[in-house]
Amino acid sequence: MTVAVGLADAATALARCDELAALSARPGRIDRFSWTTEHAAANRLVGAWLDAAGMAAWQDAAGNVCGRLEGARPGLPALVLGSHLDTVPDAGRYDGPLGVVVALAVAARLRAFAPQLPFALEVVGFTDEEGTRFGTALTGSRAFAGAWDDALLEVADGDGITMRAACEAFGLDPGQINRAARPAGSLIGYLEVHIEQGVRLEEAGRPLGVVRSIAGARRLHLAVLGEARHAGGTPYDRRRDALVGASHAVLDVARLASVAGCIATVGQLTAHPGAFNVVPGRVEMSLDLRAERNEARDRLWEDVRDAVVARCTGLGLRLVVEEVHIASAQECAPELRELLARGVQAATRSSEEPPELLSWAGHDAMAVARIAPVGMLFVRCADGISHAPAEHVTGSDVALAIDALEAAVLDLAERRAR
Amino acid sequence: MTVAVGLADAATALARCDELAALSARPGRIDRFSWTTEHAAANRLVGAWLDAAGMAAWQDAAGNVCGRLEGARPGLPALVLGSHLDTVPDAGRYDGPLGVVVALAVAARLRAFAPQLPFALEVVGFTDEEGTRFGTALTGSRAFAGAWDDALLEVADGDGITMRAACEAFGLDPGQINRAARPAGSLIGYLEVHIEQGVRLEEAGRPLGVVRSIAGARRLHLAVLGEARHAGGTPYDRRRDALVGASHAVLDVARLASVAGCIATVGQLTAHPGAFNVVPGRVEMSLDLRAERNEARDRLWEDVRDAVVARCTGLGLRLVVEEVHIASAQECAPELRELLARGVQAATRSSEEPPELLSWAGHDAMAVARIAPVGMLFVRCADGISHAPAEHVTGSDVALAIDALEAAVLDLAERRAR
Repeated sequence: MTVAVGLADAATALARCDELAALSARPGRIDRFSWTTEHAAANRLVGAWLDAAGMAAWQDAAGNVCGRLEGARPGLPALVLGSHLDTVPDAGRYDGPLGVVVALAVAARLRAFAPQLPFALEVVGFTDEEGTRFGTALTGSRAFAGAWDDALLEVADGDGITMRAACEAFGLDPGQINRAARPAGSLIGYLEVHIEQGVRLEEAGRPLGVVRSIAGARRLHLAVLGEARHAGGTPYDRRRDALVGASHAVLDVARLASVAGCIATVGQLTAHPGAFNVVPGRVEMSLDLRAERNEARDRLWEDVRDAVVARCTGLGLRLVVEEVHIASAQECAPELRELLARGVQAATRSSEEPPELLSWAGHDAMAVARIAPVGMLFVRCADGISHAPAEHVTGSDVALAIDALEAAVLDLAERRAR
Repeated sequence: MTVAVGLADAATALARCDELAALSARPGRIDRFSWTTEHAAANRLVGAWLDAAGMAAWQDAAGNVCGRLEGARPGLPALVLGSHLDTVPDAGRYDGPLGVVVALAVAARLRAFAPQLPFALEVVGFTDEEGTRFGTALTGSRAFAGAWDDALLEVADGDGITMRAACEAFGLDPGQINRAARPAGSLIGYLEVHIEQGVRLEEAGRPLGVVRSIAGARRLHLAVLGEARHAGGTPYDRRRDALVGASHAVLDVARLASVAGCIATVGQLTAHPGAFNVVPGRVEMSLDLRAERNEARDRLWEDVRDAVVARCTGLGLRLVVEEVHIASAQECAPELRELLARGVQAATRSSEEPPELLSWAGHDAMAVARIAPVGMLFVRCADGISHAPAEHVTGSDVALAIDALEAAVLDLAERRAR
């Protein structure tokens, strides 16, 4: 293939990211949450692109959108390419969608060649990876990987709508979501392209990197409970100000995670009842913990919890903790890492090894690893920015990603055929 | 009058507080904000009580509900008794309404005696004292006192509805709100009964206290601006976490105000965009400053601002400040303080001077002071709690407040008649 073809395919891929970006709950920004009308519209759009790539397209029992190109004979185990279609609030346009449109570009290129592949080729656009709406994460890919838990159906969003009601309104049968599970042995592997969401490729001057492993994560919901009282009439020695406790907690989290070489973030925090003249009686906050190893992640949480409990006790406050998500650190499969590295070398016409990176961010690959070896390719993104409107990738980097993924798929086909 | 009458009137007053408490935007709690259907219902209810007390009742051009009993001849300058009917979110039932229902009880007692009064007697239920909906405060009483500012009409509530639109929907003419202003010379004084919202009366074992002066207040809206980025992919040295800056600010505010002998509170704080896995790029927070003297209040704000700006600069953040309310410290009129003190002595059958208190909380009396001498009577409240559902007063304390206010009004009538 020529560079010209690569750039044209990349231009199509980026235009598709723009099209998806327009499917938002709020005009002027990107809010595409799970099991909403925007999610349905995104699935329809990706379904049309799957059709155009000659793939059989369907929406699975969890709301993931899937497409399949049979290989040398019908029903072969599949190599799955994909990423997710849901977003954080006020999101960028590449985190998730880029991996789906790059997968589509590779599938379109391989359409004619598919009858020679020793595996089927699938493209999946997962739902609820970010888990913005319900505070969950990897929900779609966990259902796909057979790790769905019916207890999730009772989780409610900010408007009090349960996941059960949301799935029903979306047209799914909440009692049948586990039918999205792929049978054991039906997958030979999963490859995901994603923006780096960090600055290491940019600082190294490299367009692509191969993920070595994905950090383990925990998400907790913390409530700090004090007493709501009049802001003027309550002297300091009579206050049990939940926001003072929560502010100490935010600073403790950053300090302890930094010392431990981990990453921890309080992304949500709201004081209640939330009036100018009322001492906050309750603060609701989120805590997101990440570490390369599960042990470090769990030790950090214990340290944070002990520090916050000590602060709360000293201030006459109570801490209530609810764990909402846990994901184990996940190493990518050595064979797929090597294939992706060879693919990058072929695409960049370079013998230099591409950077091997730890992914601090979680990805659907963590969930899919339950049933198949997984590999991930990172694409350089401007200033490392993601989860924000300024998220940006270049067309030439995307062209290289398409070339590298195609090369890795063909290389895998050749190895399997031997 | 006998103690039995006092207790019966107090029981009526407390039952009326309960009736008002049921007029809420949300069942099971008290949310009665300005220019809403709940506000309209409260005005109708108070209007009916004014009728029952034999008063001419009307709603003024700002949405305050008023009633008037003419004195020895029609058109005499009025002594106004009152307080406010709007609430903070998840409010108690006495902050504001108690002053209105006590005023009603006194007016009802004086109905037959009114033709002998050398002044008219009015009862007013002000709107938007708390200013919960628009972040304003004392709006109704400022309009009443001729200090209305049309610029307020463009302030929007949390749903983006302007005060102009809210007033229109309420049935007011936004261009005519200044018509609520009472003419110079039409008032001889203003007396307000209010729960203490502090613990000094309770700690002293006294049911009632006389307010010496009302603390000066400033309300500011602070926005801390950083950069929203992915929580996993952004290492600490690349973060500009607005919530870390805001957390330092919350702690700085409490520390500096405490040292200065003032009271400052961050009652509202929300991190944006507000997702588990996004470093907050923006925090919106409120700051409420109070001090007995304007100079101390303003010096505290300068100290807080300097400290927060220094934190923000060090963290790569920006601070944006908007002042939304300022109220000067207000001394109560010596004559009315003395009248109220004599009234308390009469009601409690005690020669002991009642406590003289600084009010840390703001009150409509601050606004009315622009056009008339003001006096305030504080009623002991349980554990000093206010702006919270646990707000509580006893029937016997309320009975004493009604007796004391009635005695003060009669004493003033006697002095004026001399």
